[in-house]
Amino acid sequence: MKEALKGNIVHAPVLGELSIVERGYLLLEDGVIAGIEQTLPQGYDGVVRDYGERLILQSFADMHLHAPQYPMLGMGMDLPLMEWLQRYTFRTEARFADLAYARRIYRRLASDLITNGTTRVCMFSSLHTEATWILMEELEKAGVTGYVGKVNMDRNGAPGILEETTEESERETLRWLEGCHFEHIKPILTPRFTPSCSDELMGWLGQLAEERGLYVQSHLSESAGEIELVARLHPECQRYWQTYEKHGLWKDHTLMAHCVHSDAVERQAMKDHNVVVVHCADSNINISSGICPVKKMLQEGLWVTLGSDIAGGAQLPMYRVITTTIRTSKVRQIMDDWKTDFLTVAEGYYLGTTAGHRYFGAGAGFAVGDPLHAVVLDDSDFVEATRPLSVAERFERAMYMTHRHNITAVWSEGRCVVER
Amino acid sequence: MKEALKGNIVHAPVLGELSIVERGYLLLEDGVIAGIEQTLPQGYDGVVRDYGERLILQSFADMHLHAPQYPMLGMGMDLPLMEWLQRYTFRTEARFADLAYARRIYRRLASDLITNGTTRVCMFSSLHTEATWILMEELEKAGVTGYVGKVNMDRNGAPGILEETTEESERETLRWLEGCHFEHIKPILTPRFTPSCSDELMGWLGQLAEERGLYVQSHLSESAGEIELVARLHPECQRYWQTYEKHGLWKDHTLMAHCVHSDAVERQAMKDHNVVVVHCADSNINISSGICPVKKMLQEGLWVTLGSDIAGGAQLPMYRVITTTIRTSKVRQIMDDWKTDFLTVAEGYYLGTTAGHRYFGAGAGFAVGDPLHAVVLDDSDFVEATRPLSVAERFERAMYMTHRHNITAVWSEGRCVVER
Repeated sequence: MKEALKGNIVHAPVLGELSIVERGYLLLEDGVIAGIEQTLPQGYDGVVRDYGERLILQSFADMHLHAPQYPMLGMGMDLPLMEWLQRYTFRTEARFADLAYARRIYRRLASDLITNGTTRVCMFSSLHTEATWILMEELEKAGVTGYVGKVNMDRNGAPGILEETTEESERETLRWLEGCHFEHIKPILTPRFTPSCSDELMGWLGQLAEERGLYVQSHLSESAGEIELVARLHPECQRYWQTYEKHGLWKDHTLMAHCVHSDAVERQAMKDHNVVVVHCADSNINISSGICPVKKMLQEGLWVTLGSDIAGGAQLPMYRVITTTIRTSKVRQIMDDWKTDFLTVAEGYYLGTTAGHRYFGAGAGFAVGDPLHAVVLDDSDFVEATRPLSVAERFERAMYMTHRHNITAVWSEGRCVVER
Repeated sequence: MKEALKGNIVHAPVLGELSIVERGYLLLEDGVIAGIEQTLPQGYDGVVRDYGERLILQSFADMHLHAPQYPMLGMGMDLPLMEWLQRYTFRTEARFADLAYARRIYRRLASDLITNGTTRVCMFSSLHTEATWILMEELEKAGVTGYVGKVNMDRNGAPGILEETTEESERETLRWLEGCHFEHIKPILTPRFTPSCSDELMGWLGQLAEERGLYVQSHLSESAGEIELVARLHPECQRYWQTYEKHGLWKDHTLMAHCVHSDAVERQAMKDHNVVVVHCADSNINISSGICPVKKMLQEGLWVTLGSDIAGGAQLPMYRVITTTIRTSKVRQIMDDWKTDFLTVAEGYYLGTTAGHRYFGAGAGFAVGDPLHAVVLDDSDFVEATRPLSVAERFERAMYMTHRHNITAVWSEGRCVVER
């Protein structure tokens, strides 16, 4: 079925460059992008969705967040990391043994994601198998696509509250994989992070990843204390990343959240293995972890994506994550005595969209052949400017000023899943 | 007239300490606070406004923002300061020669302020006398109180677009003061900043401040380039602050926005003269000015308040400015190699409320004898937590998560000016 979306189209096929077609047509065939045209080609009469003066933007990809931490958003921010984990995080995640509770929270999370324009995710669940299925089901129903992982953690958990033995972890992982029959939400292996996983479990996960062709997500070099802990636990490894590498978990498409303190050697290892950095600007500041040199990583050719990192991060909407990322890059510039560059708005947009969508096999920007992932944004209630604004200016303002109610339609995997 | 507001009362009479009365009563007599009680005293039957489980918080004080920059919120953020000023700021401010335009924008700004719970402001207008009156009138009508200043700038402006001679600046200032007959919005003298004002004009303003007992607001030590410029313009002054001091503008209650790069001597001079720092966290990062050592300033005993600094800042709501301030203090901690402390949520709240309200003669927190300035906050649509939350936890979450629609009532100067 042919269809055309009419509006002001802004996408980012290239890092740092916006591609804009004013009052253009985004052409679809069965939800798959067939082209972008300034004038309507033949064959589309009567099948135009006219979004008027609205902006048609790429939807967002949130490449790192903890679903079971959603209930603690914006709480405990005055606590140091370890106390925050013990007083809030583990207790919160433990609550997801209750499936009715899990259903309510995950339904809300899925709705909050999609209505804010996040159509692709890579997400941590808790260690609970059933709750993880519920999460996947609710995301699927809402129209969110991507990867979800049951968390593995067989050491240094919260005894009696949130823990699993190595045997349980392996058995439940297999059972969980058996039950993953979702069209748009796929499983990803998710060792919590090195301090939470024994060598035995890591080795088992590495083999499983290899056998079944599964991707892997985890955490890396987030804070100084964590890096010291890993060094104590693994005197045989010179650097943090090697604790994953020795078990076959450091491989093409492995997602590593944070990488704040990764040195040149560790960064080179990412590049060599096509490991993907998930930069989580808000979380890194809230937990006082450090300021990641994202601009430098990009200049080195690393694959950098963005994550909200709920609930270390306190902002779910990716447009706010994008502007926080830009602000954080300016902080990095200040720390570098103004000798490095910050991220432009176009660069921030690319990181929150194209860089993430590529993980799922998509092309760059609105690429022909890709199922459509897009948001339609109505900025007509923003404060009146001094003169008519260009589409590029409206786009920039939208990144800074958007609220959920401005997003009037969301397309995910070629389907219009939100329309209001 | 007696009245009692019932709800969960959270205020900050002391830096770093929350004072909480759960399901308590805030007692008013003719809009003036008569006390806070756990149980309803006699004489208040039938005059209780029952806000149920909602939070009753202090309203916010925005101590630095540029009203005529509101139309450019969230734009030009990729530009360096001087280009941003020339391409956006001066052109935007110049637009306020058009009084119909000024009326529309200022009405919108006043509405956006009050519905977000900002009831007290210290604000820059443009150099235009008539538009400044319109701004004051619209604020007054909306229920916003505080100080507004016609800007003085007789050098280094934008020729043909936004400039005034020394004579015009003085004449218009006197004419403007003549026309200020507002009950809740008072005039404040507003030399833009040293690079924009000749010695002659500064001296004249200092004398006027003295003669009429007027307060003064301006900018100080925001960025390295600006400090160098001031040093070139004023070789006779060792430090930036002395360019104000030599003209009698450095005095009790003088407001100085930013102070990012003020050294120990300049900070001591603030303390000695009861000069008030207006910290503008979001702006300092957006413009890549630097990271102000706010925690240190507080430890040194300086009077620190907060400002949105629209449009260097891109966030008008002060609850967002408060959490950005907290985040920025964590950035400062990171820059100090984790050797200094960050601001707690309670400290951020104090800075955005009590510290500012004091400027207008108010006491600390909800003080007996003060006309009520408060917001009522309904957090019932926040995501369900894992257990019933304490009021302190709900308060913290509200700082991070509030959106305008959660603010269901606003009290300003003893009057309920928003109710929904």
